[in-house]
Amino acid sequence: MTLELMKSLIKAAKGETRCDLVLKNAHVVDVFSGKLLKTDVGIRKGYIVGLGDYKGNHELDLTGKFISPSLIDAHVHIESTLSTCKEFSRVSCPHGVTTVIADPHEIANVMGIEGIQYMIDSSRNLPVDFHFMLSSCVPATNKETSGARIDASALNALYIHHCVLGLAEVMDIDAVKDCDEDMLKKLLNARNRGLTIDGHGAGLTPEEINIYRTAGITTDHECVKKEEAQDRLSKGMYVLIREGTVAKDFDALIGLVTKDNLRRFAFCTDDIHISDILEKGSIDHMVRKAVEYGLDPVDAIRMGSLNSAECYHLKEVGAVAPGYKADLVILDDLRTFAINSVLKQGKTVYSENALKFDFNGYTDPPFRNSVRMRHLEHGSFTIDLRGTDWINVIRILKNSLVTEHVSLHIAQQNEFSADLNEDLVKIAVVERHRETGGITTAIVNGFRLKRGAVATTISHDSHNIVVIGTNDYDMVNACNKLQQIGGGIVIAAEGKILYELPLEIAGLMSNAPAEEIVKRLGNLHEIARTVFTDLDFNPFLTLSFLTLPVIPELKITDKGLYSTLVNDFINVGHDNRIP
Amino acid sequence: MTLELMKSLIKAAKGETRCDLVLKNAHVVDVFSGKLLKTDVGIRKGYIVGLGDYKGNHELDLTGKFISPSLIDAHVHIESTLSTCKEFSRVSCPHGVTTVIADPHEIANVMGIEGIQYMIDSSRNLPVDFHFMLSSCVPATNKETSGARIDASALNALYIHHCVLGLAEVMDIDAVKDCDEDMLKKLLNARNRGLTIDGHGAGLTPEEINIYRTAGITTDHECVKKEEAQDRLSKGMYVLIREGTVAKDFDALIGLVTKDNLRRFAFCTDDIHISDILEKGSIDHMVRKAVEYGLDPVDAIRMGSLNSAECYHLKEVGAVAPGYKADLVILDDLRTFAINSVLKQGKTVYSENALKFDFNGYTDPPFRNSVRMRHLEHGSFTIDLRGTDWINVIRILKNSLVTEHVSLHIAQQNEFSADLNEDLVKIAVVERHRETGGITTAIVNGFRLKRGAVATTISHDSHNIVVIGTNDYDMVNACNKLQQIGGGIVIAAEGKILYELPLEIAGLMSNAPAEEIVKRLGNLHEIARTVFTDLDFNPFLTLSFLTLPVIPELKITDKGLYSTLVNDFINVGHDNRIP
Repeated sequence: MTLELMKSLIKAAKGETRCDLVLKNAHVVDVFSGKLLKTDVGIRKGYIVGLGDYKGNHELDLTGKFISPSLIDAHVHIESTLSTCKEFSRVSCPHGVTTVIADPHEIANVMGIEGIQYMIDSSRNLPVDFHFMLSSCVPATNKETSGARIDASALNALYIHHCVLGLAEVMDIDAVKDCDEDMLKKLLNARNRGLTIDGHGAGLTPEEINIYRTAGITTDHECVKKEEAQDRLSKGMYVLIREGTVAKDFDALIGLVTKDNLRRFAFCTDDIHISDILEKGSIDHMVRKAVEYGLDPVDAIRMGSLNSAECYHLKEVGAVAPGYKADLVILDDLRTFAINSVLKQGKTVYSENALKFDFNGYTDPPFRNSVRMRHLEHGSFTIDLRGTDWINVIRILKNSLVTEHVSLHIAQQNEFSADLNEDLVKIAVVERHRETGGITTAIVNGFRLKRGAVATTISHDSHNIVVIGTNDYDMVNACNKLQQIGGGIVIAAEGKILYELPLEIAGLMSNAPAEEIVKRLGNLHEIARTVFTDLDFNPFLTLSFLTLPVIPELKITDKGLYSTLVNDFINVGHDNRIP
Repeated sequence: MTLELMKSLIKAAKGETRCDLVLKNAHVVDVFSGKLLKTDVGIRKGYIVGLGDYKGNHELDLTGKFISPSLIDAHVHIESTLSTCKEFSRVSCPHGVTTVIADPHEIANVMGIEGIQYMIDSSRNLPVDFHFMLSSCVPATNKETSGARIDASALNALYIHHCVLGLAEVMDIDAVKDCDEDMLKKLLNARNRGLTIDGHGAGLTPEEINIYRTAGITTDHECVKKEEAQDRLSKGMYVLIREGTVAKDFDALIGLVTKDNLRRFAFCTDDIHISDILEKGSIDHMVRKAVEYGLDPVDAIRMGSLNSAECYHLKEVGAVAPGYKADLVILDDLRTFAINSVLKQGKTVYSENALKFDFNGYTDPPFRNSVRMRHLEHGSFTIDLRGTDWINVIRILKNSLVTEHVSLHIAQQNEFSADLNEDLVKIAVVERHRETGGITTAIVNGFRLKRGAVATTISHDSHNIVVIGTNDYDMVNACNKLQQIGGGIVIAAEGKILYELPLEIAGLMSNAPAEEIVKRLGNLHEIARTVFTDLDFNPFLTLSFLTLPVIPELKITDKGLYSTLVNDFINVGHDNRIP
């Protein structure tokens, strides 16, 4: 804040000059006291300068309405929406989300520091405040080949940006446990600045949470059970309850929230498709769910605003009070969080079902040629089963990041072929950053794929190509198409490309308008219906997470088939002594 | 934290190396969830490394006991205890207070930056973590002469110290209102660093609180009524409930605390005599009072620990959890907060009713010659009443910083003489920093002084000499004695010095051991009983606050008699049109 701005605000606060805008006669959500206030709100130059009687150049009668602080998404990967910051903000505004804490982990794993810098640069001057946590695990683990490697010193240079709030999700628990020096330096660079460090405590035991907290890690958005959340809570972590497109933990965790522990819970989406935001919303949707569950509406709003602000030391958002930015949601109804309009720093950015912010034209997308791999030939995806009749299979669980590691007995065969009756198809990961030629092929159960192949460059966290298929030919074809279009999602069958959804920015994000992305996604899902038996889950997101070796139980990377049960790579075929 | 320390902690957290100490079988106060946990606590190199099963080089069976985080005093002026940081920490430890947020406002007003630096330097290597807020108002106002002037740029240089957490109580509301550039720079230097700014909202209206908050001020410890506290709370301030030696706001405010707003309340002492800490304790006393009032013991402890830590962004104190310092209070009983022992960073500093920390020998006190004034002669304290028979009188209120401004009709006289029947005696302030010769004499009611004079160099905030007396001779005598001894408290009567309590450090603090100070204070009070009719209040502290022109209603400084009702200086004699 500048001296001139503060002067201007103080003059308005004391009534010496008029406010720009006064919101009159509404009930204000008082997140500090947990109740409603009947008071007017004076706004000047984007800030609330007072609750009480003010005169404004513009005055808005909000009789019967409610004023909530706008909402904060405590942890989100913008890349997972498939859209740019601009498009993300365009779809978030109408849902009252005007602050996000983003982790550019995906693009960092593909493009490195340049990727993070692009996210920061492209997030400016939008009606959403984008804050960034610095991606701590690039590569995410040593179990895969990523597009970049970011060490502590490179990351440290990024703290010059005001929008950087700390260190992003620390998922490499082994690096922490083993006191890997570079990891410890990353932790200390954040800790010694007094900044927040996000955790990634998926499946971690209470003993491992001790280690996490000892390292200074202060949040976890990976709790899927109440007992896990309670343990993290008691050990000093904020629990970020997540409701994304695939991972939906709200129902499992909300019952843990009480008046006594409410302050340490916040809401996040983590990974969410832009279509979900458009259709259901994001944090607003969670606030509504919380009220439906039985929480006091003000408490639900606190979890979506003040609590996140406190967790990340944001002192000017998350409340309707003087000294705070006028980032506000005007509600027709409190209990249903029925959004009438949204203000960002005192300017209406959404009202009467329409955006009021001028989103400028489109810019050229960067990172168009991020898919670097050798052209694949037939025979790339052979699984040799000679000498064994047991196989390790990845069994997917719908709407979960977790998989099951199952061991099946099969009829003897030289090499594996898809068995559609048993719902066993091939899955492969193809390295696409450095042309290493690295390919792993394994077997997956649960997709109910009935024909062709589906391939994508979105595969957490290194974003190599992941492909599933009933036959090798379509798998090869789909992968080669991805290389040609610079990444995205491709469906192939019977030797043809049925659909391609280009994600030209690093193979992760589209530069197209959100509605266009949604339309393409709609088309993609239409075509998907012709290759999957039953689509009661999102096969693309599910596929994208099968490559994440930090999450149980059996995952696949370009380096092999990885079991978190034995913490090692294993073979597809086995002699029934493992797992 | 260093890399080596973090490595060492992580190794202990994962059980690879033994803990230094394991506290076994106690109930741990979980300030995050608001409940008790049955778990062991592993401690290594001063930090908690885990809750759960740990092996330690030393293991302590605490069956039947409770482990609370040690307590935090959210706002205290060490100088008001009359003792040094060392002695303060020596008496605080046994009460479980091992973190304080101190404002060196008093010594800053006498000695300037040098005074603040002395406080920082003398607070190191003690079993209490002293954090400092930078005194924002030196001088406190333009209504008095202080010993120093500290501008924004001088203050800014002090942020290099890790122990500096923000800007201390902003009491000069006029400077904020009037957009005084130096004040705004002080505010911005803290605000733009994301640091906390303490307020001083004594008597401020809701409109003025809007201004305060707009300026970025985030705490208030001057609430004396529930309505005030509610207003501050709703506008985003932390309310620091104060229970000091004079100002006792606990009873008035505690009824406002609910499960919904608890997180925004903390405890502080502000100004407390060392004898009170020794006898009753400080924050521990407030925790006890809160439980007696009916609060859940864990909630009471939260107000005395986690809440303050959150308010001041202290991430390693205020909870019993891994990643936190092992600053712990072991309790024999939770409800009565019966302290068994106290640990500071894992070392026992108090147990079995004895201190276990080696407080080294005494150092030479600085600032011995801070009383700089001309030798006073008889006639210094004349009040001319010719032509008027109405007088403005300061009426003191026992155990309150607030005074009443009363107007009395008196028999005609040329100059005022004390009227002991009506309890009207003289009060004077003598400038003592720059030999300006500035003296103001006025009339005070309520002390029930029956003979002699009482003078002190402790007079908030500029710490000129303040003296009351039934006769001029003893008043002059007492003031001259103060000059001779370098400041302190003096009682004189019938031409003799009855008692002198030297406060040789800047006229504010004694270098003596706490017990010695208490003994001297005891003697002082014994002698005081011979000059006051009735001592059901502390006349010295009360006297010290009569010079504080930021607090209602009528106060006295070296520049004149100041009324907050008219916001101006007024005469003692008046013609009944004022006030």
